[in-house]
Amino acid sequence: MINAISTSAGDRTADNSFALVIHGGAGVIIQEERTPEREAAILARLQESLQTGHAILATNGTSLDAVVAAVKVLEDSPLFNAGRGAVLNSEGAAELDAAIMDGATRKAGAVAAVKRIKNPIEAARLVMDRSNHVLLVGDGAEMFATGEGMELVSPDYFVTEHRKKQLERIQREQSKLRAHSDWEHAVDSLGTVGAVARDRHRNLAAGTSTGGMANKKPGRVGDSPIIGAGTYANNATCAVSATGHGECFIRAVVAHDISALMEYKDMSLIEAAELVVKKNLVEFGGEGGAIAVDRSGNVATPFNSQGMYRGYVREDGKSFVAIY
Amino acid sequence: MINAISTSAGDRTADNSFALVIHGGAGVIIQEERTPEREAAILARLQESLQTGHAILATNGTSLDAVVAAVKVLEDSPLFNAGRGAVLNSEGAAELDAAIMDGATRKAGAVAAVKRIKNPIEAARLVMDRSNHVLLVGDGAEMFATGEGMELVSPDYFVTEHRKKQLERIQREQSKLRAHSDWEHAVDSLGTVGAVARDRHRNLAAGTSTGGMANKKPGRVGDSPIIGAGTYANNATCAVSATGHGECFIRAVVAHDISALMEYKDMSLIEAAELVVKKNLVEFGGEGGAIAVDRSGNVATPFNSQGMYRGYVREDGKSFVAIY
Repeated sequence: MINAISTSAGDRTADNSFALVIHGGAGVIIQEERTPEREAAILARLQESLQTGHAILATNGTSLDAVVAAVKVLEDSPLFNAGRGAVLNSEGAAELDAAIMDGATRKAGAVAAVKRIKNPIEAARLVMDRSNHVLLVGDGAEMFATGEGMELVSPDYFVTEHRKKQLERIQREQSKLRAHSDWEHAVDSLGTVGAVARDRHRNLAAGTSTGGMANKKPGRVGDSPIIGAGTYANNATCAVSATGHGECFIRAVVAHDISALMEYKDMSLIEAAELVVKKNLVEFGGEGGAIAVDRSGNVATPFNSQGMYRGYVREDGKSFVAIY
Repeated sequence: MINAISTSAGDRTADNSFALVIHGGAGVIIQEERTPEREAAILARLQESLQTGHAILATNGTSLDAVVAAVKVLEDSPLFNAGRGAVLNSEGAAELDAAIMDGATRKAGAVAAVKRIKNPIEAARLVMDRSNHVLLVGDGAEMFATGEGMELVSPDYFVTEHRKKQLERIQREQSKLRAHSDWEHAVDSLGTVGAVARDRHRNLAAGTSTGGMANKKPGRVGDSPIIGAGTYANNATCAVSATGHGECFIRAVVAHDISALMEYKDMSLIEAAELVVKKNLVEFGGEGGAIAVDRSGNVATPFNSQGMYRGYVREDGKSFVAIY
């Protein structure tokens, strides 16, 4: 099993090449979801996400725009645990979290526990660009989005048969779940999506969107919308989007820890990302992974789980996607 | 103006002395609140908070218990922006955030945007101890607290005449506010409360509780309940509780940055806390301060604002409280 793709291309600070990295979640992929058809569909959607972001970056677009567009493609697909097709909470509803951060200004925006916003990553961008807040939750976030001209959708929009069956299965097995809560939850949170990019202007950005953990308590918020935990960007170091068992990722302050190791320990992106994901997180029992890009365009995609849906593309348009 | 109290007492790792540090918010203290009577009342309540925590630590209680008890005294006082007397959002309601973190296990619990929980710090403790989540928001957090036997209070419990007048004043001056939003908001968020402690078992803990920013949008969440931003504890480094302009504190990942500078740059607690509060935060325009204690019982209370309500007490029971 190859456990990480870490590609280094030396210091590219001086050039104006770009890079886009995406993930569609990390964890254990349960047997019934390991069909060639499903995996082909997932890989195809990852390719579409990469191509969408590439088109923006190739025409001198910003890393922020590329991240939003790439994440939106995955939110709109029922194959991932974000936007349509998100996992359901213990009451059968989808509650969505998302965040975005701009590495140039270190401005950030996030929404959490929203139930009617079709593309939470766009709402996070609005919070960053058009409010003086960073994080808005629940009805308040929806009210803000509406005020900014965003149309709300019915909560039913997000719910798929696949997720209804998943919730039924989990709730049936709840006593077993309690005995192995960390493990089983990790399985059922697979599918968080995220993107990080370095654009031709040498600016970094990171974005993450998720439905969180299946059968979560209403109002539970994971690491995705928490700046420093699931999402972080800083032109001086790197842009990171994480995926996995959110509670562990919050406690380990994963994304900022990768940045701090680069800034304060002079580690490379790859050294820092691998240390946090494969050592620090493992000590917490924190299953999952992260994608990251640094100011030079180096890419890291470490994970400590069975698989992580992921991919990246560079200037030349050649893209790479993988699951295991 | 003395801008910080930083007391170092060498390495105390080997001994079993304890230390408790508290704050009641940092920012500009507006003229009308600078009366000798009000300041005496604030200092008296800070003393009561210190004594309450001291009694627990002196009888071999845990840093977690001391932090909760010290914060609760301040939440119950209408003088501070937490619990009763919290600032009001743009709709005239109090929406409360709180977090706690255990430095020994790095477990954490937090609630945000709750409207009916009398002591949010106790709800945060319940999330840590009795759920497998870290952060619960809004109605979901209240539902969880009720399920754990906590009684809810009417939203009116939190609202004071003082805060109603404050909101009216801010909304009257809203056009001026927009022009100077950061500055004015910082003024009106003064009063967040927090505590950090090192107990005789050499364990660290941190807790923070707040009503956030006056006239905030409904659903706005600041740094207090964000692990790594407003609250963080790690026995290997320090325990931190921050107070100030929350959006800047989230973007700067303040509490974890102090810890990372100690862990990765071998800085002392005081060097790390001063660098983050007086340099890094200032670059963001982030007005406020932080309190911190390290594994050896050293204490730091830097702030970059006009004042910070604060105090600390050690083994000998001699306490120190100050505003400017």
